[in-house]
Amino acid sequence: MNTTTQAQPESRAAAEAAQDHVQGDRLQAAIAELARFGGRDDGGVSRQTLTDIDLQARRYLIDRAGALGCVVEVDDCANLFFRRPGKTDLPPVLTGSHADTQPVGGKLDGAYGVLAGLEVLAALNDAGIETLRPIEVVAWTNEEGSRFGPGAMGSSAFVDPGRLPDYRKVTDGDGVTFGAALDRALQAIPEVPRRALRRPMSSCVELHIEQGPVLEAARVPLGIVAGIQSVRWYRVTLTGMAAHAGTTPMDVRADAMAAAVDVAHRLYAHAAQAAASQLRLTLGRWLVGPNSVNTIPGEVEFTIDVRCVDERVLERFDAALGEIVKSHAWPGRVELECFFSRPPTRFPAEMLALVGQACERACRQASQPPPVALTSGAFHDAMYLAEHCPTAMIFVPSKGGVSHNAAEETAPHELLLGAQALAYAVTALANA
Amino acid sequence: MNTTTQAQPESRAAAEAAQDHVQGDRLQAAIAELARFGGRDDGGVSRQTLTDIDLQARRYLIDRAGALGCVVEVDDCANLFFRRPGKTDLPPVLTGSHADTQPVGGKLDGAYGVLAGLEVLAALNDAGIETLRPIEVVAWTNEEGSRFGPGAMGSSAFVDPGRLPDYRKVTDGDGVTFGAALDRALQAIPEVPRRALRRPMSSCVELHIEQGPVLEAARVPLGIVAGIQSVRWYRVTLTGMAAHAGTTPMDVRADAMAAAVDVAHRLYAHAAQAAASQLRLTLGRWLVGPNSVNTIPGEVEFTIDVRCVDERVLERFDAALGEIVKSHAWPGRVELECFFSRPPTRFPAEMLALVGQACERACRQASQPPPVALTSGAFHDAMYLAEHCPTAMIFVPSKGGVSHNAAEETAPHELLLGAQALAYAVTALANA
Repeated sequence: MNTTTQAQPESRAAAEAAQDHVQGDRLQAAIAELARFGGRDDGGVSRQTLTDIDLQARRYLIDRAGALGCVVEVDDCANLFFRRPGKTDLPPVLTGSHADTQPVGGKLDGAYGVLAGLEVLAALNDAGIETLRPIEVVAWTNEEGSRFGPGAMGSSAFVDPGRLPDYRKVTDGDGVTFGAALDRALQAIPEVPRRALRRPMSSCVELHIEQGPVLEAARVPLGIVAGIQSVRWYRVTLTGMAAHAGTTPMDVRADAMAAAVDVAHRLYAHAAQAAASQLRLTLGRWLVGPNSVNTIPGEVEFTIDVRCVDERVLERFDAALGEIVKSHAWPGRVELECFFSRPPTRFPAEMLALVGQACERACRQASQPPPVALTSGAFHDAMYLAEHCPTAMIFVPSKGGVSHNAAEETAPHELLLGAQALAYAVTALANA
Repeated sequence: MNTTTQAQPESRAAAEAAQDHVQGDRLQAAIAELARFGGRDDGGVSRQTLTDIDLQARRYLIDRAGALGCVVEVDDCANLFFRRPGKTDLPPVLTGSHADTQPVGGKLDGAYGVLAGLEVLAALNDAGIETLRPIEVVAWTNEEGSRFGPGAMGSSAFVDPGRLPDYRKVTDGDGVTFGAALDRALQAIPEVPRRALRRPMSSCVELHIEQGPVLEAARVPLGIVAGIQSVRWYRVTLTGMAAHAGTTPMDVRADAMAAAVDVAHRLYAHAAQAAASQLRLTLGRWLVGPNSVNTIPGEVEFTIDVRCVDERVLERFDAALGEIVKSHAWPGRVELECFFSRPPTRFPAEMLALVGQACERACRQASQPPPVALTSGAFHDAMYLAEHCPTAMIFVPSKGGVSHNAAEETAPHELLLGAQALAYAVTALANA
């Protein structure tokens, strides 16, 4: 990437022209068309990664990109790349997102970023602009992680191909390996040339819905994502003794649920104290054995998802958690395991400046309030791309903060503004 | 039943002779043989009601009772009755229990009471005793309630046949109705004559393992069951809003698990205060939606099983629960439902006196400590029979208080003492 923080005059003219050629109706039509693959009566979309319906959606994207004159390529993790050539073969500017959904998701999470990327290419075609660098739109494989865990397999394997062999062994609920699902996806498109993972990129911009309530509450249509929160996942396992609810006196019980509720209660109390530091605590997944009305729970396992913009707050949480677990007195056992940990991602200042310029012009042209900076609470493929090249993200609001839900929604004028900002940023970067 | 509290001299002689003819080895062999139906490598038994393996076990019991000279009959709820005729056709004395188990149970819960009943008939045969009244040994259908809920369907339908039509509609996890399972069980024994439900009985004595730690802790081999605890079952349903764990700030959450933990924590605190009154509180069954690491729980449902010998303590718990639920402030909804309530059962004083006499003699003969009175924390078929005729129960110790578990165990000499006490009580009642 060029180290100047603002688009140069000639580059700026092309960026403005690209921005002004983005068509909201065409983008809306594409979103509606892609949503038909796995579309549900309630307006939601069920298109888990590498399922038959996902393969059909991929075919749709390949055809759409082909119609725009793109070169289509695929890598060993079935990430699809749609390339608009530039004047040179310098490393391209990358945009896009993912096209898979949660078991029941909406029509925007991921899909919006891919389709807005293709809309940018259409706008460049309409404006007759040839960029210095190629521009590539990517559809990453398995961002959601609901069929095969963890999420963001495609982008993380792109950045570090050494991850792929282990990913290939992961199985879904039916015992199908990710490797077998990948091979099937690749065999379904034999005409698409294969390319290497970890290809050099000059920069990357991902456009996404916020999936949270911040932009809506601020009544602002565009957000400049400064970075992605730090996160840690823990598993707490309490093993007591299952026994008859009627016959076992309270003083001889080793009740795993009573112990779990006590630990959980202290964790929520800690989070309430740390609220000012924006700590976010979720005890999301609970397994109770034997899970019967009249049997004292003998085993309880629950997960902790804790996030913060400030890594030091998570370190304090980690210490408090260890102390709560260690000091918990009961007749049973407690085990604590941290099974995922990710430090915060901070996007580079020059990328934030360029994306800010792009968002500001889009908002100004539409007489909308200027963009605000915010931190992403969710993971995105951009989190991994930030390890590979200068990266940034743009958010549009989510109505009611709702995502991973059929009710996921963003106003059409906000979706247009996001695509316009993306067009500006990508074009400027492709001429730098 | 005769209203005198002690066996009369001639009746006592027969009762003592019956007691002295009980054979521990024969009882142990029968327990081992029945445990082969559904027997597991870990020593446990898996014989849920009306499964193929249960039908095979029923055939074994029919053959065993036939070899003892019993008349075998079955009613519309597939309860099996093994009748040893008396000198008269006066209403019989009933003993027995159930032969079904939990998904993974032990070899004694229920089975012991049925087989000890048959051992009593064998002892009477060996002693050449003819009683005034017939004696019937029953194997009740579906006491456990794990395949079809609620439990004790057989005994409760016997006492009140009006319950059967609703029971017949209940389905198991595979969609099989209790009615269809009953019909299949009855068709498997076409030669066994059908009889009416709700037949008159002069009295009933059920022998069972304690399934709790009280007798073991007191180092006493026999317990006279004074009654059965009062119990109430509630369902608490908290409905908030499922949302992304990363993107949703703490102050806009409607976290159903945070609310559930708060309610549960207050309930445990109430139970700790009420510990002196022997309140027993179990939050045994939890359903969490969507139950995902990185999604704020949108719905949590948990059950409350609360028991006490003192009904007034449960009334205070009910009031405290209502207050806790009503006063709980959060953005979501809480619903509270009491879905089962059973007042305490108190067995009649004259039955307790007779059973006490039977237990005392058995202990004295074996140089064991005398029996103690205790309250049953668990339900038993005798709870329903107490609505029908004068009823009592005898308990033997459970090693470590363990039941509903493959590790369920009672020492052979204790099993023998229980059967001896039963022989005395049943014989005395059958001559009264």
